[in-house]
Amino acid sequence: MSTSIKDPSALRIGVAGLGTVGGGVLKIIETHREQLAARAGRPITVTAVSARQRGKDRGVDLSDIVWEDDPVALARRDDVDLVVEAIGGPDGPAKAASEAALGRGAHLVTANKAMLAVHGRALATLSESKGAALRFEAAIAGGVPAVKALAEGMAANNVTRIFGVLNGTCNYILTEMEHTGRDYADVLREAQDKGYAEADPTADVGGWDAAHKICLLASIAFGVWPDFDSVSVEGIEQVSKADIQFAADFGYRLKQLAVAERSEKGCSLRVEPVFAPANSLLGALESVTNAVQFEGDFVGDVALCGPGAGEGPTASAIVADIVDIARGDRRPAFGVPAAAMAEPVRVDAQAALGAHYIRLSLVDRPGVLAQVTGKLGDAGVSIDQLRQIGRSPDPATVLFVTHEAPENALRAALEGVSALDVCLEPPAAFRIARI
Amino acid sequence: MSTSIKDPSALRIGVAGLGTVGGGVLKIIETHREQLAARAGRPITVTAVSARQRGKDRGVDLSDIVWEDDPVALARRDDVDLVVEAIGGPDGPAKAASEAALGRGAHLVTANKAMLAVHGRALATLSESKGAALRFEAAIAGGVPAVKALAEGMAANNVTRIFGVLNGTCNYILTEMEHTGRDYADVLREAQDKGYAEADPTADVGGWDAAHKICLLASIAFGVWPDFDSVSVEGIEQVSKADIQFAADFGYRLKQLAVAERSEKGCSLRVEPVFAPANSLLGALESVTNAVQFEGDFVGDVALCGPGAGEGPTASAIVADIVDIARGDRRPAFGVPAAAMAEPVRVDAQAALGAHYIRLSLVDRPGVLAQVTGKLGDAGVSIDQLRQIGRSPDPATVLFVTHEAPENALRAALEGVSALDVCLEPPAAFRIARI
Repeated sequence: MSTSIKDPSALRIGVAGLGTVGGGVLKIIETHREQLAARAGRPITVTAVSARQRGKDRGVDLSDIVWEDDPVALARRDDVDLVVEAIGGPDGPAKAASEAALGRGAHLVTANKAMLAVHGRALATLSESKGAALRFEAAIAGGVPAVKALAEGMAANNVTRIFGVLNGTCNYILTEMEHTGRDYADVLREAQDKGYAEADPTADVGGWDAAHKICLLASIAFGVWPDFDSVSVEGIEQVSKADIQFAADFGYRLKQLAVAERSEKGCSLRVEPVFAPANSLLGALESVTNAVQFEGDFVGDVALCGPGAGEGPTASAIVADIVDIARGDRRPAFGVPAAAMAEPVRVDAQAALGAHYIRLSLVDRPGVLAQVTGKLGDAGVSIDQLRQIGRSPDPATVLFVTHEAPENALRAALEGVSALDVCLEPPAAFRIARI
Repeated sequence: MSTSIKDPSALRIGVAGLGTVGGGVLKIIETHREQLAARAGRPITVTAVSARQRGKDRGVDLSDIVWEDDPVALARRDDVDLVVEAIGGPDGPAKAASEAALGRGAHLVTANKAMLAVHGRALATLSESKGAALRFEAAIAGGVPAVKALAEGMAANNVTRIFGVLNGTCNYILTEMEHTGRDYADVLREAQDKGYAEADPTADVGGWDAAHKICLLASIAFGVWPDFDSVSVEGIEQVSKADIQFAADFGYRLKQLAVAERSEKGCSLRVEPVFAPANSLLGALESVTNAVQFEGDFVGDVALCGPGAGEGPTASAIVADIVDIARGDRRPAFGVPAAAMAEPVRVDAQAALGAHYIRLSLVDRPGVLAQVTGKLGDAGVSIDQLRQIGRSPDPATVLFVTHEAPENALRAALEGVSALDVCLEPPAAFRIARI
């Protein structure tokens, strides 16, 4: 008989990638070993890890843990029941390790929204065919249990709308611009210095990160396969101090909003900077906090908020998934089995009604405003409010709020205005969100 | 061979009690039959119901459903796999039916916070010994998946504090008092007319309903058996217009706050009206909305908010529990098995530091304030702010905000002030909450 103290009922974890997230997972499993075993009904142990730099001190004891240089080799180990994929990136080693794990029936827990938004269908189908769990709570809103709340807590509902502030970097930049009166480029530089934004900030400020997230939430809510290419994405790069000030004066705040809506015709997904009511839950969010709101036909509106990123929150979400799997929970990745998932049907959002804020840079001379409002009127867009900032020197910044109009009418109007030779810069326009 | 179209894999539900909640459960199961089957991985059917009034129209088709007059007989039926207890009350038929169901290994889903706060230990132990699930998402914050978020989403954390606005009736009364400038009795009467408050409002305004809820949340968070008698409970009946106005002037709002805290010494639970920062998530809540905030050691603060009561939200939470159970989720009632639950250790909250708001009704003559501040000073309570409302006619209402002091010092001070013959009414005092 073996004298090993190892519990044969233990769930054996392999962690691929030991950056902030992977390291955080090891710390939680080490710190809360007994508590996790009680909650999971069985011990949770780490058997193997892999990462690029072997020597680096990660603040955790790796002495009893097998080291693999190759994450795919880690994913194939017989003594690993569940792989935590904390490598990142939509393809490459993250995808290879994920496929290797699921392909042999090992469970997969990941925070990799980019991979799932693109390959979610294939990975979910693979996991189901092998009887393995695929979970990704940490991919959306960090430590906030948004996936669980939607896939399980809202299971009795037909969910028709999701709103979210899902990218902490953008919310940090926008709230800092508001509080300090500084401009976008200045605050972005500071965010990069503080580590809140990457050296290449495109994924965050360009809206791609939030687009991955809303794509996954929509799949769960609507029971359709992820369709990342269908997300309409607009970055926050064009937001100016004038926009933020104007918004504040009228009870709004600039937010990067991710929205998923379903109608009988299909699904519409978008990420864009909007004017959000300052006294709404999402409008009131400060700094890097994330929030998401679900609209269900029986429950009404349910909202969650909390830390959207960082070692502790992200690792907390990963370990929650591990505990669920250890307890035997086998919920399908997107809430329903692959056979019950529908093909996504895209809806053209262009016909949707909306009020908009518009910022124009115009030559400052008599008659110009008449030309501009004429173009707006020709396209069927009427004006609710107007403000001119400064009179000289040229150019004049003129801010409008429109009445509700179809989005394609607004686009046509802006094209008309753009073509005027008194219009000095491409117009900026933001939707006024009804949340 | 049978020609029955009944699916042998179906989870067969018995609903005991067909009031708002039970009726709502039937409606959801009827409306979303296919969607629920996809999410649960098997059909969910209602085989039997029981209620007191047989003839009443409940807006759902009961023709294929067996009627039992006795909920215990319903709970004992062989063709019922899961009983929804929607009768209410801590004892009587609700408890009898719950015991009958669990006792034969049938699952139990309930919204009955009063029953669980008192008999939760016995029922959880019984359910575990029989391999039956016991779930109560709907007991706390209605449609908000607070139990799930705490028991599963926060499973990687040591949770040390929970704050909640958990009673919609109280929040409706307090926010209405603020918005309309009317007094407590007047707004309560209106709430009763509108159906937001019961004819006997004690359970809500006295704090007992919120106390049941925080007691259950504390059990899940801290892994201790429910200990309802340990909850310190104070109602909102003494809140006056003057308190609400003073709070608003200083950036606070009156909220009925439920708090559970754990330290190395033990647990402290209380429900009381407090001054909450107006710009905090809980402070900003309007009307009947509920919210709850969890503090975890790895994740930080996570908050959920949404509709805390009503047919749709409550039934939504019950059906979410049913779907979990249908999918095979067997999480223990309080998150960990009975053997891992600890005995509750009560901590005396009297030594806790806190700033307080005090309202006194005093004889209006020179020297009185010196007497009062003297009594406060003698007990070690120093004053941060003071305001007198009106000078004549007698009495004068004097409002204080204290610096932080131990709660027992505050109580001693108030006893001293109470004993002065210039003090015309018992003092009112509310904690200034740090949330």
